Amino acid sequence: MTRALGKDSNCSIARSLDVLGDSWILLIIREAMLANSTRFQEFRAALGIAPNILAKRLALLVDEGLMERRTYQEPGVRAREEYVLTEAGRSLSVVIAALATWGRTYRPRSAGTSPRFASEDSGLVAQLAFVTEDGSQVPPSRLTARRTDDAVVDRAS
Amino acid sequence: MTRALGKDSNCSIARSLDVLGDSWILLIIREAMLANSTRFQEFRAALGIAPNILAKRLALLVDEGLMERRTYQEPGVRAREEYVLTEAGRSLSVVIAALATWGRTYRPRSAGTSPRFASEDSGLVAQLAFVTEDGSQVPPSRLTARRTDDAVVDRAS
Repeated sequence: MTRALGKDSNCSIARSLDVLGDSWILLIIREAMLANSTRFQEFRAALGIAPNILAKRLALLVDEGLMERRTYQEPGVRAREEYVLTEAGRSLSVVIAALATWGRTYRPRSAGTSPRFASEDSGLVAQLAFVTEDGSQVPPSRLTARRTDDAVVDRAS
Repeated sequence: MTRALGKDSNCSIARSLDVLGDSWILLIIREAMLANSTRFQEFRAALGIAPNILAKRLALLVDEGLMERRTYQEPGVRAREEYVLTEAGRSLSVVIAALATWGRTYRPRSAGTSPRFASEDSGLVAQLAFVTEDGSQVPPSRLTARRTDDAVVDRAS
């Protein structure tokens, strides 16, 4: 959103940032994911965001396929819009967890909070980690990285 | 950078976004991590970023402890500045990998590229994944999440 991608459009990181580059986007996703917020006023109250900015960001989230706009109506009450995460939006759990992991470690705070993730199926707590084929975990600071074709990266996973 | 954190300063995600909220920051980190760029002109050429913006972002990265500014001088050549990731900066591999994972899946592109991570110690390829205590992996879209005290989240890891 902040710049033309140009040749960078081949980079999966740049393509993600093109959608997620504005902090409000990830904060709205956070509220949907952690507080089960679905309504305009819920997002507004939780984030202290100006209504016009919130409206634009929600529209963008729908356009980008991260949220779905649904209308629901209870008897005797006027119809309301709700915003629900799509699968693409729910999969941002990986980005949300990564931000939380880094923030907890390098910007610690005594009364801090973070999301705790659990498998929807087994109920077991799940941690985000770098895992090698032999199942061992590698700390994020003990990695080397190089640019590789997506097809090769996908094959390895 | 984009807003006052206020009560949100307890949230590890918001604290990370406060540093990383501008896309240039993560793109500079990406170049340092994947292309081993260290010099002003290398970042400038790779990102097509305006010099004044790059200078501000590099200064911020140093202030925030994500990069270290070093001066090196080869005989007969004038001294040069280089910017090297600190441990806090290197640990952003978790955020870079999360963005790549999401972008590769939900914004696929035929000639796309992503970082491939490997353990510095064993050389084994490492994938970012949600892992439960029993070692099984959970897809990012199959998770529930709730806000939890950092102390509890850390104990579980």
